[in-house]
Amino acid sequence: MSTLQFDSRGGLKHLLTLEGLDRSTLTALLDRADVFRVAPGEAPRRHTWLAGRTVVNFFFEPSTRTRSSFELAARRLGADVLNLEIGVSSTVKGESLEDTLYTLEAMNADVFVVRHKDAGVPALLARHAAPHVHVLNAGEAHVSHPTQGLLDALTIRRHKREFAGLAVTIVGDIKHSRVARSAVQALTTLGTRDIRLVGPKSLLPRKGELPGELYTDADQAIRGADVVMMLRIQKERMNKASVPSAKAYFKRYGLDAARLKKAKPGAIVMHPGPMNRGIEIAPEVADGPQSVIREQVTNGVAVRMAVLQSFYT
Amino acid sequence: MSTLQFDSRGGLKHLLTLEGLDRSTLTALLDRADVFRVAPGEAPRRHTWLAGRTVVNFFFEPSTRTRSSFELAARRLGADVLNLEIGVSSTVKGESLEDTLYTLEAMNADVFVVRHKDAGVPALLARHAAPHVHVLNAGEAHVSHPTQGLLDALTIRRHKREFAGLAVTIVGDIKHSRVARSAVQALTTLGTRDIRLVGPKSLLPRKGELPGELYTDADQAIRGADVVMMLRIQKERMNKASVPSAKAYFKRYGLDAARLKKAKPGAIVMHPGPMNRGIEIAPEVADGPQSVIREQVTNGVAVRMAVLQSFYT
Amino acid sequence: MSTLQFDSRGGLKHLLTLEGLDRSTLTALLDRADVFRVAPGEAPRRHTWLAGRTVVNFFFEPSTRTRSSFELAARRLGADVLNLEIGVSSTVKGESLEDTLYTLEAMNADVFVVRHKDAGVPALLARHAAPHVHVLNAGEAHVSHPTQGLLDALTIRRHKREFAGLAVTIVGDIKHSRVARSAVQALTTLGTRDIRLVGPKSLLPRKGELPGELYTDADQAIRGADVVMMLRIQKERMNKASVPSAKAYFKRYGLDAARLKKAKPGAIVMHPGPMNRGIEIAPEVADGPQSVIREQVTNGVAVRMAVLQSFYT
Repeated sequence: MSTLQFDSRGGLKHLLTLEGLDRSTLTALLDRADVFRVAPGEAPRRHTWLAGRTVVNFFFEPSTRTRSSFELAARRLGADVLNLEIGVSSTVKGESLEDTLYTLEAMNADVFVVRHKDAGVPALLARHAAPHVHVLNAGEAHVSHPTQGLLDALTIRRHKREFAGLAVTIVGDIKHSRVARSAVQALTTLGTRDIRLVGPKSLLPRKGELPGELYTDADQAIRGADVVMMLRIQKERMNKASVPSAKAYFKRYGLDAARLKKAKPGAIVMHPGPMNRGIEIAPEVADGPQSVIREQVTNGVAVRMAVLQSFYT
Repeated sequence: MSTLQFDSRGGLKHLLTLEGLDRSTLTALLDRADVFRVAPGEAPRRHTWLAGRTVVNFFFEPSTRTRSSFELAARRLGADVLNLEIGVSSTVKGESLEDTLYTLEAMNADVFVVRHKDAGVPALLARHAAPHVHVLNAGEAHVSHPTQGLLDALTIRRHKREFAGLAVTIVGDIKHSRVARSAVQALTTLGTRDIRLVGPKSLLPRKGELPGELYTDADQAIRGADVVMMLRIQKERMNKASVPSAKAYFKRYGLDAARLKKAKPGAIVMHPGPMNRGIEIAPEVADGPQSVIREQVTNGVAVRMAVLQSFYT
Repeated sequence: MSTLQFDSRGGLKHLLTLEGLDRSTLTALLDRADVFRVAPGEAPRRHTWLAGRTVVNFFFEPSTRTRSSFELAARRLGADVLNLEIGVSSTVKGESLEDTLYTLEAMNADVFVVRHKDAGVPALLARHAAPHVHVLNAGEAHVSHPTQGLLDALTIRRHKREFAGLAVTIVGDIKHSRVARSAVQALTTLGTRDIRLVGPKSLLPRKGELPGELYTDADQAIRGADVVMMLRIQKERMNKASVPSAKAYFKRYGLDAARLKKAKPGAIVMHPGPMNRGIEIAPEVADGPQSVIREQVTNGVAVRMAVLQSFYT
């Protein structure tokens, strides 16, 4: 998968994973994204980089947030957007995924933004796509969510400048998190070495599966951190992790003002959304001065514009 | 709520209710709307007042008609439109309404057109919205539907010119009708004093709750009226009102040619749609020469354009 | 229905059926469509023929493929597109189809692209439509799918030039197929006389219902054909046709390389999609050198643009 996404000259043809993207490629994408950021309240400029191009939002999982982010990113670049929310069934009337791809290609669709609960779907599409078609992974099983990794990196860079000396703590259900995986990949490539993954034991990845130190004690993991990234916890997972209740989870892993004090002064707080307030994060922290959660959303649109634009320059 | 919608200079920042809008504000909106009306068959001009702006159709109740009207209004002003039909569940993956608002704001959404079955949602959003963001109520519980009130006023003005001397009869389930409430507010502010509200006793508002005389006899209430506005009746409501059948309802409250004759010659017939033909209105009246029902729809787009444009001028 | 679709000067006002369209009208539409074809990978030009016009995708059956094709066709002509997927219920909140039409007309909708499981709906809409409004049948019961017939004709013409001497074999559930009906109408008008309809006996039309010879033996029907058009088979239909299994169907009617050899060398293979690979068509044929299946999809957008444009020139 990590080689599949490059063209013969090493340029990015698809974005399937952040694995295998070197530091200069990541940095170039973040630089592009910086240019596309728009202050809240300003009308975003309408670009023409993708004029005449058709971007398909090919979503097999319901999504308001990510779908909207990609839709706005594509439109602000001048593209036409086709929204296909295919819901729980993984196919159109029993048609294979490849055939749906071929059909939309034959209508001159140019970019496929795909979200699917099964691992391997973005790579499958990339393997079958026509030479001029680009596939963009918008969330794949537990495996990968590369534009989320990029937006997290962009957000950290805007506040902390250097990745090298940072301590980054990621809290929650690491095991099932495509957000955590893509963040760790981006951070590692960009030079962060002190990565700490903390959560209930059964929700941690296997040792050595991901770069980073494993913790089960949140206070210990957050101590001295520059960045605290909270993950969304699902109720079903909590139960399986023998955390008896949302309240118990909040006590052990939730981020409130007291726990945040253990991090460095000036540490930033991140969350990919949607948030469960009072479960993984306290409102006072989510809305507090150290939170960059809304900025992450703004950066998400910018990063998606950067990736889309990179396909056509 | 009625003060929340103004900015510090008294301009309209949100449109949550017609309550508290003075006559000159209403008249100015109607004047703007007049300019946006397009004759059927003509291609509407594409304006640029909202170029670069993003209007979110934030609909928590299914709606074809109102959603389409707002979508076309926003696009004809040059805006991008994001359709979010969130269906029965009132939230995105358990996220609070405020957080969904913040997320979309962070993507540079500028206007939220909201429809919700619960009272207070538009005001809630307006209270939490960023300073540059506008909230537009597209139907709120039984409480308010301000653009419907405006389009009704515009339609009446185009046919009757002066509001002052008019007799306006509203027929049906007044109690649960946001359409009636907003119409009564608009008419009262614009100077109409003879407002008659008629329906089965259990579907009338409490005495004094709304300006206007209460009636249970349709013939009596329609006598000499300049405007007869029929409301959609829901089956469940009919039953609770001890009206045994649709046929019985039609007999007592339905508008047919005979009953319409009791109104002034030249009286106009209105209905917010969708119509139950044969239940609250006879086809001969709905399609007859006194009906302005389709014109209301045309005026709806114009009025929505006027409100949206007013936010940016 | 066949006269309803012309204006007083014989021009095409609606497209309800290919019945009654003469050869020069069909040829003119195919000529227009040829101009709109875009090579895969090229950004389609943005035309302005429908600038300011609103095209409503008025779909009462779920459809990804046809809806997307019409949406892209309309947008590439500069139109605004309103997607209304009304699902299984045939109406909006009990409103009649005519009233929904009137409502959308009053919002300045100009073209209604309608798909419905009931016969007669496109004609019903055309009968009630305002003088300036156009209705385009996008699939009607078993009866008609005129743009599919046009795209099939365009595809055949691009490969075979003359329709007169061709032998065209259509294989599958002819009886319930609007695709077959519209293809046969187009081909007959364009001069093809050797049309062969083959399928299980219970899935054939009544004798004389359609022009063309009826067959139950696929090998016999395909022998010497210039064009082999496979239809999608539904499981329910297979069972009713006493074909015991998908495997048995494939053996008797499926198109594999061996069976295709019975056709003329250079015969083309068509399928309207979505394909059931391994049931009505073998992957080696679907993806083989004689397949023009993806080209049909490309031609579909072009043909739809041609029809839409013809309404405004």
